[in-house]
Amino acid sequence: MTGYESSPLYRIMHPRSVAFWGASNNPMGMGSVQLGELLAMGFQGQVYPVHPSESVVMGLPAYSRVQDVPGPVDLAILVLPTRVVPEVLEQCGNAGITRAIVVSAGFGEIGSDGKQLQDRIVEISRKYGIHFLGPNCIGVINPRHKLNTTFYPYVAAPGFIGMASQSGSFVTQMFVQLEKFGLGFSQGMSVGNEGVIDLAECVEYLGQCPWTKVIGLYIEGIKRGQEFVRIARTVSKTKPIVAYYVGGSKAGSRAGISHTGALAGPDPLYNGIFEQCGIIRAGSIEELFDFCYVLGSQPITKGNGLAILTHSGGPGAAAADAADRCGLEMAEFAPDTLEALDQTVPHTASVRNPVDMTFARNYNDYLEKLPRILLSDKGVDALFVYLLMPHKRVIRSVIDSLMDKPENSSAIADNFFIGQAAAVAGLSREFGKPVVGASFHTRSELFIREVQDRGLPVLSSPERATRALGALARYSRFRQDMVNNNDD
Amino acid sequence: MTGYESSPLYRIMHPRSVAFWGASNNPMGMGSVQLGELLAMGFQGQVYPVHPSESVVMGLPAYSRVQDVPGPVDLAILVLPTRVVPEVLEQCGNAGITRAIVVSAGFGEIGSDGKQLQDRIVEISRKYGIHFLGPNCIGVINPRHKLNTTFYPYVAAPGFIGMASQSGSFVTQMFVQLEKFGLGFSQGMSVGNEGVIDLAECVEYLGQCPWTKVIGLYIEGIKRGQEFVRIARTVSKTKPIVAYYVGGSKAGSRAGISHTGALAGPDPLYNGIFEQCGIIRAGSIEELFDFCYVLGSQPITKGNGLAILTHSGGPGAAAADAADRCGLEMAEFAPDTLEALDQTVPHTASVRNPVDMTFARNYNDYLEKLPRILLSDKGVDALFVYLLMPHKRVIRSVIDSLMDKPENSSAIADNFFIGQAAAVAGLSREFGKPVVGASFHTRSELFIREVQDRGLPVLSSPERATRALGALARYSRFRQDMVNNNDD
Repeated sequence: MTGYESSPLYRIMHPRSVAFWGASNNPMGMGSVQLGELLAMGFQGQVYPVHPSESVVMGLPAYSRVQDVPGPVDLAILVLPTRVVPEVLEQCGNAGITRAIVVSAGFGEIGSDGKQLQDRIVEISRKYGIHFLGPNCIGVINPRHKLNTTFYPYVAAPGFIGMASQSGSFVTQMFVQLEKFGLGFSQGMSVGNEGVIDLAECVEYLGQCPWTKVIGLYIEGIKRGQEFVRIARTVSKTKPIVAYYVGGSKAGSRAGISHTGALAGPDPLYNGIFEQCGIIRAGSIEELFDFCYVLGSQPITKGNGLAILTHSGGPGAAAADAADRCGLEMAEFAPDTLEALDQTVPHTASVRNPVDMTFARNYNDYLEKLPRILLSDKGVDALFVYLLMPHKRVIRSVIDSLMDKPENSSAIADNFFIGQAAAVAGLSREFGKPVVGASFHTRSELFIREVQDRGLPVLSSPERATRALGALARYSRFRQDMVNNNDD
Repeated sequence: MTGYESSPLYRIMHPRSVAFWGASNNPMGMGSVQLGELLAMGFQGQVYPVHPSESVVMGLPAYSRVQDVPGPVDLAILVLPTRVVPEVLEQCGNAGITRAIVVSAGFGEIGSDGKQLQDRIVEISRKYGIHFLGPNCIGVINPRHKLNTTFYPYVAAPGFIGMASQSGSFVTQMFVQLEKFGLGFSQGMSVGNEGVIDLAECVEYLGQCPWTKVIGLYIEGIKRGQEFVRIARTVSKTKPIVAYYVGGSKAGSRAGISHTGALAGPDPLYNGIFEQCGIIRAGSIEELFDFCYVLGSQPITKGNGLAILTHSGGPGAAAADAADRCGLEMAEFAPDTLEALDQTVPHTASVRNPVDMTFARNYNDYLEKLPRILLSDKGVDALFVYLLMPHKRVIRSVIDSLMDKPENSSAIADNFFIGQAAAVAGLSREFGKPVVGASFHTRSELFIREVQDRGLPVLSSPERATRALGALARYSRFRQDMVNNNDD
């Protein structure tokens, strides 16, 4: 296995300098937009635009030929018309550049003519020892290195999800999706037509990335099947991999061919591959990130026993129904658990699983005492907690409970929310069991934001949260099987 | 069939006056919270709090007994301890009140003792001819009548979704879910334990409500099976019904019993019932509203042929894959369609279905010209369009295209967005075919908000949008079968 820093991807993701083809002083060109985002992200290394006629591009000194660039170049980015790509790649090779991102499209994905051109650039890259991403890709994001070669601003935080995708959109347009949950990419790469670097190589690299806690894959078709299985099976012994595969249907397969030229296979074949590798399959792009959120942040489970804590019957029943359908079992509580619950909940409440408070009057009980009782039960391997904290009502409740009504009551209420969020978010680590929440409210609510930012995943519905716990339980079984079989 | 205004539900949903039990001057009590929301909504009728000792409750004159209330009472709302409910209901009967909402819990859902008490209040209601919702419910919302008896503020707009739910949360906590899409309830009722008024009666009532374009149901178990089938089958011939049923799994069924005492049945039984009635089943609460959104706003389809328009390959492939899995077919375009597409898209684009622009330079083409070409094709029964309108970039593009750079460039860009939104949102009506969009951006973006507010559904992912179109196609087949069989 290639080491992290010796992986060909390392310098693509951590360049000290970039030579950029295809940007100009027309701000609407795709290359200009991409260079603009690279600069906007605050990239710390040297940036050398290469342009045939302009001496300054977007405020930077530009060079007409790569030989004229005054320093060493770690990474070449090509946003050029298809036909000139081979020539420029050859120039890169001659200049000793060994890493590149080929954004240009019009290769393997458009049919046999494009395939021939793609073969040619692969041949050139072999001749000069160039490792490149693409063609027909949108590049990479490495927020901690302040590297964004794509054409969207990175609005999310640096995160723990490593992404490798056959769709550029499912890297770049996910910035806004991740931001909805306070999540972010550790590193993300769009592999396009996989001329040289493919998904397998990305999985190997992300498997070793210290910031990456979970790997997300968007797949239209896997190229080097055996190699992919060998690598993914090794990586997923220590780091979960979640895959969204769209090539298993007739329509999805056809769409994939005209998108990246990828060759798909039927669902059973891919399900077999995924199972062999311990890869968890997601059914949609939202679910891919739901699963990554929980698998990348929560400890693995010992079993399938789920406890559901709610103060709203419908969301509790919805979570229970979803649990049954994704392989989780409703935990049967031990007698002392039932006794402890009985002493805490109101008489209208149900202490059977789901535990339903019916109307949450005491938030300390709901967010700390009850979860502790449930997580202490041996039969409970995971906890789902429905999180609804009606901001205004809680503020009123907090204020009413104070002897003096101080002027800074809003700050006091905020502190209350933050304290409650810290209490519930710390339980997972303390008990070594996964805890996942759900709310129809979003991060615009202080409480949700605080819970998420303290590491407890809050998903958008009870069903989505439960299914993500189901995915975690499936992955946990794979890990246990590996240990039991002493597989290496 | 009972007429709309002669339905027992009509006066519950349109009371001219309300007597309210259970509110006090302690703002934290559940009754006080509910009365507070009723007043906050701006209810126009008389409100009479009934309280044993206070003469003023929350600023309103209060009455110690219902006989003392100075005017006629259309609706009694009871938020009282379980044990006093029978007595108060008896008093209501004596005072000639015939409509009530019993919020109080502790009846059929807690076991045989509660069941006995529930039987008793049903008996009282029969004696006096009282029709009530509940017990163990959260009441109703009728935004156009400014009626909100629940304990959450109604933050959404008056809308077209009629909701009847065995979970109060899946009425009240959906206010914020609907608001994410600019949607709202036409009328919504939480039926609780269905002591008297049940889901079937709500479906009959909503079927006749002029504001309700689609009916959403949350079901833990159906009570009067034959009656439900008879009514739902009649209603869904003209108005779609979407149901989210959680009782089909072991865990969901058990949760339902302790929630509302509902008796569930296995999935195949309920799927049979739904099929017989033309009810479309949703797999989650989010999906329930996704389906309602599209079924309530878009025309029914003639067939299953779907066209996908995108400028991002991944989202296009994801939509195609989802289409295949939900019974839609990728339309094969006619020769003149292909020719017209070829003349409009760039050379890197794909004119096969999905139509992939690869990089949208010309938004007029993308949002108007191309959709028109596709919707004119006889084989296209429905259109999915991926909507991504990067606000900043479009503004820059619009400004750059202007000869003069005016100072009010932001207003000009806004007008551009509004114009584009109007163009794409008008297509569905013009062609009589459903059009549905998706974006990872939300209503915080002007463009998305404008498109949604002009009647084109924009869902949160390509898969969700496509599945909702699949649900519409399934409902359309039911409607056609009804016509073909001349069923009545």
